[in-house]
Amino acid sequence: MTDFRTLGSELSNWGRWGDDDRIGTVNLITPERIAAAATLARTGRVFDLGLTLGANGPQAGLGRINPVHLMSITGDTKMPDGGGFADDYIFMPLQCATQWDSLAHIMYDNKMYNGYAASEVTSSGAKKNGIENAKSKIITRGVLLDIPRVRGKAWLEPGEAIYPADLDSAAALGKLSVGKGDIVLIRTGQIAQVRADKNWGQYSGGPAPGLSFSCAPWLCEKQIAGYAVDTWGTEVIPNETPDVFQPLHIVLIVHAGMLVGEIFDLEELADDCAKDGVYEFMFVAPPLPITGAVGSPVNPQAIK
Amino acid sequence: MTDFRTLGSELSNWGRWGDDDRIGTVNLITPERIAAAATLARTGRVFDLGLTLGANGPQAGLGRINPVHLMSITGDTKMPDGGGFADDYIFMPLQCATQWDSLAHIMYDNKMYNGYAASEVTSSGAKKNGIENAKSKIITRGVLLDIPRVRGKAWLEPGEAIYPADLDSAAALGKLSVGKGDIVLIRTGQIAQVRADKNWGQYSGGPAPGLSFSCAPWLCEKQIAGYAVDTWGTEVIPNETPDVFQPLHIVLIVHAGMLVGEIFDLEELADDCAKDGVYEFMFVAPPLPITGAVGSPVNPQAIK
Amino acid sequence: MTDFRTLGSELSNWGRWGDDDRIGTVNLITPERIAAAATLARTGRVFDLGLTLGANGPQAGLGRINPVHLMSITGDTKMPDGGGFADDYIFMPLQCATQWDSLAHIMYDNKMYNGYAASEVTSSGAKKNGIENAKSKIITRGVLLDIPRVRGKAWLEPGEAIYPADLDSAAALGKLSVGKGDIVLIRTGQIAQVRADKNWGQYSGGPAPGLSFSCAPWLCEKQIAGYAVDTWGTEVIPNETPDVFQPLHIVLIVHAGMLVGEIFDLEELADDCAKDGVYEFMFVAPPLPITGAVGSPVNPQAIK
Amino acid sequence: MTDFRTLGSELSNWGRWGDDDRIGTVNLITPERIAAAATLARTGRVFDLGLTLGANGPQAGLGRINPVHLMSITGDTKMPDGGGFADDYIFMPLQCATQWDSLAHIMYDNKMYNGYAASEVTSSGAKKNGIENAKSKIITRGVLLDIPRVRGKAWLEPGEAIYPADLDSAAALGKLSVGKGDIVLIRTGQIAQVRADKNWGQYSGGPAPGLSFSCAPWLCEKQIAGYAVDTWGTEVIPNETPDVFQPLHIVLIVHAGMLVGEIFDLEELADDCAKDGVYEFMFVAPPLPITGAVGSPVNPQAIK
Repeated sequence: MTDFRTLGSELSNWGRWGDDDRIGTVNLITPERIAAAATLARTGRVFDLGLTLGANGPQAGLGRINPVHLMSITGDTKMPDGGGFADDYIFMPLQCATQWDSLAHIMYDNKMYNGYAASEVTSSGAKKNGIENAKSKIITRGVLLDIPRVRGKAWLEPGEAIYPADLDSAAALGKLSVGKGDIVLIRTGQIAQVRADKNWGQYSGGPAPGLSFSCAPWLCEKQIAGYAVDTWGTEVIPNETPDVFQPLHIVLIVHAGMLVGEIFDLEELADDCAKDGVYEFMFVAPPLPITGAVGSPVNPQAIK
Repeated sequence: MTDFRTLGSELSNWGRWGDDDRIGTVNLITPERIAAAATLARTGRVFDLGLTLGANGPQAGLGRINPVHLMSITGDTKMPDGGGFADDYIFMPLQCATQWDSLAHIMYDNKMYNGYAASEVTSSGAKKNGIENAKSKIITRGVLLDIPRVRGKAWLEPGEAIYPADLDSAAALGKLSVGKGDIVLIRTGQIAQVRADKNWGQYSGGPAPGLSFSCAPWLCEKQIAGYAVDTWGTEVIPNETPDVFQPLHIVLIVHAGMLVGEIFDLEELADDCAKDGVYEFMFVAPPLPITGAVGSPVNPQAIK
Repeated sequence: MTDFRTLGSELSNWGRWGDDDRIGTVNLITPERIAAAATLARTGRVFDLGLTLGANGPQAGLGRINPVHLMSITGDTKMPDGGGFADDYIFMPLQCATQWDSLAHIMYDNKMYNGYAASEVTSSGAKKNGIENAKSKIITRGVLLDIPRVRGKAWLEPGEAIYPADLDSAAALGKLSVGKGDIVLIRTGQIAQVRADKNWGQYSGGPAPGLSFSCAPWLCEKQIAGYAVDTWGTEVIPNETPDVFQPLHIVLIVHAGMLVGEIFDLEELADDCAKDGVYEFMFVAPPLPITGAVGSPVNPQAIK
Repeated sequence: MTDFRTLGSELSNWGRWGDDDRIGTVNLITPERIAAAATLARTGRVFDLGLTLGANGPQAGLGRINPVHLMSITGDTKMPDGGGFADDYIFMPLQCATQWDSLAHIMYDNKMYNGYAASEVTSSGAKKNGIENAKSKIITRGVLLDIPRVRGKAWLEPGEAIYPADLDSAAALGKLSVGKGDIVLIRTGQIAQVRADKNWGQYSGGPAPGLSFSCAPWLCEKQIAGYAVDTWGTEVIPNETPDVFQPLHIVLIVHAGMLVGEIFDLEELADDCAKDGVYEFMFVAPPLPITGAVGSPVNPQAIK
């Protein structure tokens, strides 16, 4: 297997969009592509890909927790005039459920995307590459690559890897030419398995189906704007690299500056695509513009 | 002035979409209208209407606070293999910045929209009318009514009311026929004033420009799906009703079941509309699907 | 078994210290008893009974979480003059580790201690019986009843009940006359078992050793100011009452107004008592004076 | 004025209690002194020195916020058997009200107390000098130095400095010989002024009465275990050193390893001391043992 530093160097986009760039491959989304994407909203059916946020989420206590939603004012709080109102708070890790990684989420050799020092991400937040930079940028064509459907199974098993040939097969199934500025949604079916099991089990951080490290060149060569998977970390776990954790994250986020989404719920969308054979759609998934955040919860909308 | 209970009764939508309905006027958005809205994304220019979320937000300590964003892992945290990653948390009131009210946010006479008991909003959250019900529903045509531009001023002053005739004038300026299923963005310019002052001042809860109570019939008769304003509470403050606080909220949210958005940043969008004369656009503003939440932060996208 | 309502009625302290009382049995601590307790601090050895607060705590995700401690400023944040400082936040359930229940923590038949309506505990906090009322009250003689030592074992097993005779035996072992105004620490050894297992397992809310319901009269007749146990809930679990959960809490907190402490780490103290044969000490355990809180974390100090 | 680095070097306690020490001057509290302190609890009257923790606290939004107390379960939440319970959470900066600084709170020239690198305080907390190290250590004789009473006024004005001679006068007033292992409570009366004004105003971080930099040798030579003041930062603000912020913190915390307490409410205690002429007491102020915390809220107890 190619060393990840070597591959990263080959796939690097540092400087490609200027020395000040903070959004990487999202630059590949142009107004023209947005307008073209809008033409895919043909019938107005909408699929939201965000998990509901609450105590029953996927986190199992290792580093991140599920959202804690607390009411500061409940419905029975009455004002003298007969009126009332309710109000609420949330405490949550920004990456506890359906979310975008920002380009400040991953570092290697003390650097993050575009060569910024890892030390730019202090306790005050990310001075560079924070998610707020992408706040109006994530609207484009979305395409679904449904891997278990290609393999004729309900879901991939934990540890089952997805290779470039699988991506090609799934694109062929969807009659898709994956290309510049697309956001590619890759389904492993792990959320379907979780639902069948009625238990998140080791979904967060445990063995998982996902992308082989060998998919990195495929994803970069297609010039996509980003990709998202229905798993905790998008990559096959155990990783194929004994010496480095989540090598795709390093090559794609640190070197290529690619937008990565995780824990996307693709089940309902995948069912619909299988039914009508249309695997492309308008995709709108704005992050919350949290200043200096290294990730953001998102409720992505796929519009067909 | 008509008593708000009388007016509420006239404008009531309770039962209109079934006894189990939890989303109110958002029901007026149909697949056909979504598809039609997409045709407004002509050139692919995007305007995001969400304030950045951080310590410098509008809250001044009365009941709500600004978001507290904290890093759980900073960029200099190193893994043995040379890699690193950053991670973060947020603690925030769900309605501290740009946000949607859910239909569980306001009560009157112990009821909320569709007749549900106010007591359904407990410390466990809203069992009815929570924001998660609208998670895939807020995509439609957006239109901008730029009131200060009609009045030939930079912004409305605190306490300055907007009347139905102003809404008509602003629609005429925009060559708009406001109609079924639209989401109407109403600009007072208060955020421009805040920026000129470099100080949020009493923006949150203090005197504010906004809608007169007399706008309620206008908004309901147009059959809009919702509206949003660039102020803390959408209504003119001081309210015109000495005996009841925020009467429009009661009539519109409790009786009419209308989607209400607050603290939308309309400045950049308004400049563009003034330039090209186009005051309509595709509008996509998905809430976070927080189970049982009575509001949600949102980063609305206007696509022209 | 006596019905808990009947027993509660017999042991009730409602009105005993006035209709406005909010601290219950803590009233039994008098200045004289505090001064007397201070004479037990003979050699100045201190045992702190609070678990360290952090991610490795006992909570397993059922309703409560472990504390989340986040740094808002880390040590490498530098000021221009060469100085620096660090700062931090905590988010935690008030009863996630070593803690006092306030008398607003438990209700029955819509009432809490002293007859206050349960509805006095709203989303704004406890208007009556909040923990802040006891802020300068929890200093008195502490005594340790070491049950496993009496039974000649390292710890009691989950489900193993403690009866009044055990309390008497443990008092005899400690040469103690348990009496008015004392705070009684009752050791089951479950924390020793957790440490031996290196795993909290079902400590929080699962099967546990603890007090039999039949201990209620014993605790009340002794006129103690409060008691604390080294388990999640002080009572034997499974409870002896199939129809009601944690019946001792009801009788003791709701009816008798007794101060109850949970998850106290008694291991080091117990070892010392076994060594020197002295089972009494000065006990100082001030709650945080959180306005309207129904519980408080505490780091109790036993001084011998 | 002596340069703070020079003075710090003279007053340094680095290495005095071993290279692994993490508690500094608290080492001066010995079992003998604890036992002696207990003899001061003569009549059993208790004064708690902790501000109530809630939304009405002193923070004004600059870096720290007041505690946010939220109910996760309110009193009207009913269980099927007729029972109920309430539960709650808190989100707070650890130093937002009455609190101890840990020795990991202040750094200078990239070092903290005992020479540990400032970089030991990461986003995971303080690996050295965290407050949990002092969890059973803060019990000793407390003494009150009531400066405004010496000066014959209700309170010191913002900007009014306290000099060593004032400390001596206040000790004389209290008939005290301040000495080894004591914790010295120094009253400026600023909280009385806040209460008279009914407004925290600039209490947090603004101009304040407090210790002159010249008090550093006095405090160190007395070999006290720590000191606390009724102000936000213990030092006179504006500081006497234009080039460095809070120089006493640097010399005392970084060099001398001294325990420092802030925002102590000394009003009730001071009134009592003036009445009975007794300015010494048993002092028990355990921090919460939060792993790696750089400070802790505390509810200190003075027992006379």
